[in-house]
Amino acid sequence: MQTFTPPTIPPIDAAAIEQARTQQESLAKPPGSLGRLEEFAIRIAGIQATETPTVDPATIVTAVADHGVATDGVSAYPQSITGGMLNALVNDRAAVNAIARSNAVSTIVCDFGVVDGEDAVGSDAYASSVIDCRIGAGTANMRTEPAMSRKAAVASIEQGRSVVTSHLTDAGCIGLGEMGIANSTAAAAITAVLTGNEVSTVTGRGTGVDDEGLTHKQQVIADAIETTEPDRTDPIDVLRCVGGYEIGGLVGVTIEAASRRIPVVIDGVITGAAALLAVAIDERVQPYLLPSHASVEPGHTVQLESLGVAPLFDYQMRLGEGTGAALAIATYRSACQTQTEMATIAELT
Amino acid sequence: MQTFTPPTIPPIDAAAIEQARTQQESLAKPPGSLGRLEEFAIRIAGIQATETPTVDPATIVTAVADHGVATDGVSAYPQSITGGMLNALVNDRAAVNAIARSNAVSTIVCDFGVVDGEDAVGSDAYASSVIDCRIGAGTANMRTEPAMSRKAAVASIEQGRSVVTSHLTDAGCIGLGEMGIANSTAAAAITAVLTGNEVSTVTGRGTGVDDEGLTHKQQVIADAIETTEPDRTDPIDVLRCVGGYEIGGLVGVTIEAASRRIPVVIDGVITGAAALLAVAIDERVQPYLLPSHASVEPGHTVQLESLGVAPLFDYQMRLGEGTGAALAIATYRSACQTQTEMATIAELT
Repeated sequence: MQTFTPPTIPPIDAAAIEQARTQQESLAKPPGSLGRLEEFAIRIAGIQATETPTVDPATIVTAVADHGVATDGVSAYPQSITGGMLNALVNDRAAVNAIARSNAVSTIVCDFGVVDGEDAVGSDAYASSVIDCRIGAGTANMRTEPAMSRKAAVASIEQGRSVVTSHLTDAGCIGLGEMGIANSTAAAAITAVLTGNEVSTVTGRGTGVDDEGLTHKQQVIADAIETTEPDRTDPIDVLRCVGGYEIGGLVGVTIEAASRRIPVVIDGVITGAAALLAVAIDERVQPYLLPSHASVEPGHTVQLESLGVAPLFDYQMRLGEGTGAALAIATYRSACQTQTEMATIAELT
Repeated sequence: MQTFTPPTIPPIDAAAIEQARTQQESLAKPPGSLGRLEEFAIRIAGIQATETPTVDPATIVTAVADHGVATDGVSAYPQSITGGMLNALVNDRAAVNAIARSNAVSTIVCDFGVVDGEDAVGSDAYASSVIDCRIGAGTANMRTEPAMSRKAAVASIEQGRSVVTSHLTDAGCIGLGEMGIANSTAAAAITAVLTGNEVSTVTGRGTGVDDEGLTHKQQVIADAIETTEPDRTDPIDVLRCVGGYEIGGLVGVTIEAASRRIPVVIDGVITGAAALLAVAIDERVQPYLLPSHASVEPGHTVQLESLGVAPLFDYQMRLGEGTGAALAIATYRSACQTQTEMATIAELT
């Protein structure tokens, strides 16, 4: 059986945490008056094992792939939109590009297996802008068979790890992002299996299906779980049965980042599923995870609770791509900069 | 009687709002999937009467002054801290400097009347970095007499207006900030008078007084209102009786900005009191006001409800200076940039 051996993930640095807390208490402000910003700075100091925490350089990794289950009508959009959005990402014109740019955050686009992306895949822009992580031309339809082989599941994680080792070894933080028609279906299935919640509790409207569409989507997910019988004690098997190539990729990004003391910012419900899988593979990943927004998707609430993180804000967003992560990184940057740039009380008096 | 005549404040632009909404619906994303970000972009388009809303250049105006009521022990800190913090602001080492810098937001420091700021006031850094808006060396103690004369109240507003006309006519947005020991006492008094709430409902711990200190602070505020008898139908009289020079200054900044179609981002409970006064002077200011965080201070909740705005996030902050406004401006910038930089659906297909 194909196995995945995660890299060693160190504990976060208790001495750095203590030092950062002492530093926060010495700064020119009433104790605790920066609220959660203080906790953020302290946490990042502990992750990075440093007195001078920083999120920079900050990058969003947007992982893109197609899902066989899209043919079962679980999305408001056809599968071809994935390729179209890959094209928009390549041309820096998707939402995440605008939001990341406005927050001095870079973006990396990774193709883990877009079916209908030939236009983008063959273009000069693709060659220069997309990291080729292709595992296959979309997953199989999980309603009738496992989404992928165990070999592909492990390969997707390893591809995600290699994105970090090849491009992001000096990252201050990495934000998770994704795009793929029907991937909120995979995310809900993973969340139901790993958290033990009912499918109806964790399944939302994704791109915006109506009531009838939502009921259908829930049925498809229930069918997929019944058909593929994922072993909830084996996260690789869950990824194999009801996952997606880009989700596996983000699992790899997360695990590799944690092994390198790089904080990982969760986005919406698809990245949340990847985070759940990463923690299921190795629970030492958990302290490296930072929340961003509270998504409209009901499964996201379940995920964040399971991961033990509280969202920063709720703007009723449900787009993915890394849009929420990019917004949150600006706040984490501010938190770090208060830690490293403010005067101390001693300096004032 | 000294009167204040506000400049003409135009309504926000209904055609620009409609155009921005149509543009949002044309962008490459499921309708509504950017949630409140879409509303933010549309609102700013309406304020600026433009198809291309922008928050840049963005500036925080941090207005600083002392309060006579500080001698009554309403703060956890002595009055001399105001001068010390003015010094930190001048040297770009206060919390707001770090947070604004990290979000590509400028800061302007305005001295509306710091008592113990000689060190800062006489320094080269002061001369080059502080806008002299001094109305007096701190207000009188509102517990025993009106905080200022009506003439000074009007002068503080006019000084605030002149900060905008002299330095910020090309601003994309202005964030309100302040510093002044005991100014959360003035803010609570203003909020109680203007909203008709009990003093106990709108008074918080400010810099961090204990239970006994909070009870005392509430008593001081109740005494001040009883002694000075502010006319709640006359906002200038409320400012005169229980206000502060920097609060008057921020009223002027807000009104002048609105008259120039510049969005104004509210920070915590002191800037909220200034916003309440500005709207009481001219209700046409209201649509130009944008929220930032939800402060720990209970009066802030009352203010935001009265102003009809919902906070973006709650990080349990209670520092002021413009720290929350600087964080929110990054989000407003992202909202504007999705509006102006994203591909449309038509471009993708």
